[in-house]
Amino acid sequence: MANAQLQSVLDHIDKDFDNSLERLFSLLRIKSISADPAYAGDCKAAAEHLAKDIASLGVATEVRPTAGHPAVVGKAKADDKAGGRPHVIFYGHYDVQPVDPLELWHRPPFEPAVADHADGRKIIVARGAEDDKGQVMTFVEACRAWKKVTGSLPIDITFLIEGEEEVGSKNFVPFVEANKDEFKADYVLVCDTGMWDPETPAITTALRGLLYEEVKITAASRDLHSGVFGGTAMNPIRVLTRILGGLFDDDNRITIPGFYDGVKDTPPEILEQWKKLTFTPESFLKPVGLSIPAGEKGRLMVEQASTRPTCDVNGIWGGYIGEGSKTVIPSHASAKVSFRLVQGQDPQTIRKAFRDYVTARIPGDCKVAFGDHSAAPAVALDWNMKPLAAARQALTEEWGKETVLMGSGASIPIVADFKRALGLDSLLVGFGLDDDNIHSPNEKYDLRSFQKGIRSWARILAALAEVK
Amino acid sequence: MANAQLQSVLDHIDKDFDNSLERLFSLLRIKSISADPAYAGDCKAAAEHLAKDIASLGVATEVRPTAGHPAVVGKAKADDKAGGRPHVIFYGHYDVQPVDPLELWHRPPFEPAVADHADGRKIIVARGAEDDKGQVMTFVEACRAWKKVTGSLPIDITFLIEGEEEVGSKNFVPFVEANKDEFKADYVLVCDTGMWDPETPAITTALRGLLYEEVKITAASRDLHSGVFGGTAMNPIRVLTRILGGLFDDDNRITIPGFYDGVKDTPPEILEQWKKLTFTPESFLKPVGLSIPAGEKGRLMVEQASTRPTCDVNGIWGGYIGEGSKTVIPSHASAKVSFRLVQGQDPQTIRKAFRDYVTARIPGDCKVAFGDHSAAPAVALDWNMKPLAAARQALTEEWGKETVLMGSGASIPIVADFKRALGLDSLLVGFGLDDDNIHSPNEKYDLRSFQKGIRSWARILAALAEVK
Repeated sequence: MANAQLQSVLDHIDKDFDNSLERLFSLLRIKSISADPAYAGDCKAAAEHLAKDIASLGVATEVRPTAGHPAVVGKAKADDKAGGRPHVIFYGHYDVQPVDPLELWHRPPFEPAVADHADGRKIIVARGAEDDKGQVMTFVEACRAWKKVTGSLPIDITFLIEGEEEVGSKNFVPFVEANKDEFKADYVLVCDTGMWDPETPAITTALRGLLYEEVKITAASRDLHSGVFGGTAMNPIRVLTRILGGLFDDDNRITIPGFYDGVKDTPPEILEQWKKLTFTPESFLKPVGLSIPAGEKGRLMVEQASTRPTCDVNGIWGGYIGEGSKTVIPSHASAKVSFRLVQGQDPQTIRKAFRDYVTARIPGDCKVAFGDHSAAPAVALDWNMKPLAAARQALTEEWGKETVLMGSGASIPIVADFKRALGLDSLLVGFGLDDDNIHSPNEKYDLRSFQKGIRSWARILAALAEVK
Repeated sequence: MANAQLQSVLDHIDKDFDNSLERLFSLLRIKSISADPAYAGDCKAAAEHLAKDIASLGVATEVRPTAGHPAVVGKAKADDKAGGRPHVIFYGHYDVQPVDPLELWHRPPFEPAVADHADGRKIIVARGAEDDKGQVMTFVEACRAWKKVTGSLPIDITFLIEGEEEVGSKNFVPFVEANKDEFKADYVLVCDTGMWDPETPAITTALRGLLYEEVKITAASRDLHSGVFGGTAMNPIRVLTRILGGLFDDDNRITIPGFYDGVKDTPPEILEQWKKLTFTPESFLKPVGLSIPAGEKGRLMVEQASTRPTCDVNGIWGGYIGEGSKTVIPSHASAKVSFRLVQGQDPQTIRKAFRDYVTARIPGDCKVAFGDHSAAPAVALDWNMKPLAAARQALTEEWGKETVLMGSGASIPIVADFKRALGLDSLLVGFGLDDDNIHSPNEKYDLRSFQKGIRSWARILAALAEVK
């Protein structure tokens, strides 16, 4: 691959960037919230839009049904005269998180715009601007530039974009399994992760797993008046808060028996390396108004954030939550509870331990019911994987700073599924930043992340073509 | 007061009962939910409707503005040739509780109807059927019968019906204080309590107080992604559940320091009397699907229900509570927490103790804010009050069973306010039953409670006229 050719591609990317942005905006305007059944039509519309956009590269692309929101599948062959070029799957998702609380958004979440960040950075603001529409489009636009400039892609690519990542990929994974012969490839490229900091590119080589449970505790068969029944009838909020309030000890360790079984300490040499990093409460927590790391005492904050397991109640509700007051003892109370898991923890074992823990604390005349949203193990990738070195070099060239190999606290369960179902490793490259507000109001993606993200992928595609 | 005259009044009540029911239904159709500002117009409509209804008795009645929902004031003089008849205030409220969860209602809450209870009783089903529209109308209809049959009321009556009882009477109490010269009387009649059981009338002579607080805990300045911040950022639901989950010890005693200071044990002779009552988990808790009294260990259930203080979380919310899952660490979490207070507990002292308890448990980088909905002390009435004996005898004659004098676990804060602001004792007579589902879906009032309630008040009015 001639350097001159790559340079032409990069130049084209910069020249065509306004159009790239407009194509991203078209996708961002579609309200593809996968969690809420009311938006099923929008999810379908987003799949169709994206399929059309990928097809416009000259790639045979289809919207493929699943038992849930559809997937987008596109297949492109490189013009590979010499032979031996790799075949990769590119994975991303077009679905987005819900937007509530809507009143905290500074502008409507599905009306994307370029805005000025407080510190002068230009940012793209919209739900999905980063996660994952903006990231997906960095790759699509890099491919578009290659096709435009050279008439071909540097490697064989199967585009595989799903619509249920934010709700646990429940129907996408069976779809992949059912079509595994179709998805033979050398490895997977995933664009759903972040940079180390705004100047430093990163490849993510470890991911935490995710166990996500729902708990509903029922006491009386109907709501009761607290004047009549207060003092004699068990309140399910009392049961629920007592259980959830006991999940941590005074050292911030999770109290579920067996929770830490199999979890390994971070190797001393890695710890030494991490101690030199500028990952501090000042740099990481202060921007969101906090100052005290909430994880296990005696652990580095970087461990708390990436290599230690966690527990969070992501939602809780029960009784009267409207304006004013109501003297009610509710019939039931619920919570959504999730755990970020690390190497050595089996999601099913932790699920059983959690459910046993809760069940043991339910009074004799109350009931508990569980629901499950996700159960994905942690993933550690092979740091010696050849394409990784090539991609790392390409990223370093684009950003002018050494690419960091990092562990991520987040979970991308599909990475474990690709390994299990297709036998494929994943290379995780992304351009998100810690302040992107993903899953929150005012989600954004730096304009620079988008533009240099496209350029980064253009370089990575060239580099991967050289890895036999 | 001739017995023959009373008998004519009672006969008229039975003859006119279908019309009484239709007048109650007209009031029940008005959605006077005081807690929700969206229903302010309905509250005004209910006040106007009721004022017109009372005026139709020939009583000078006005809708009177307050800083909140209006009050209804009507003044009627007895045709008192002999002199010395008492002047009473009749108190009730036209506002009702919210109706959520609406999906649990078997019919629309503001479309009243007579239905068949499972055990064959005829019941009036609607929000407010008992609390307090049905109860108010027992008194209004008794007065109507007296006027119709004799042309006069047996005693002087000031009707004083408020529209904010369900939200703590915040604007009604200042209204009463500001007009206290207008509300001079001998004592107050209140119809907002219950029977001992469906066969046994009761007069309530003690009421628990109510302290109702709102707590909001804020951690980060925005919602966070649990993949990025899980393990390092404090979750406000964790803080809230830990605090609320610690409010009870293993003996079901409330752990707030000083909470029980000043609370007296029930006298042994009362305890002995209560041990003979058939107030058991089987009779009281089983109908609502429970079996284990949730109050302090070592106390009779009747004590737990009436003479011991309680704590209930009436509502809790935070994070994502919609369909599916969202991996969010919310910025804040809230709860509504109320306490039923007994003699010896000062609401302001308990409020301070609760707030101190919560504040001491807030991590250094989190914040807490409190809101207050109600702070009313417990009330014990004078059992030797003369009208009480007269009313008790009248009730016993109507129901054919000895009237029980009882303590109630519920709170009617206005009773303490009447004592403080007007210097008046209250006589609490009502016809509610434990299974009336007040504050819950499918609120009902037994048709028999309504009819015999009207007859009871007709008798009580006659009896009170004889108490000089």
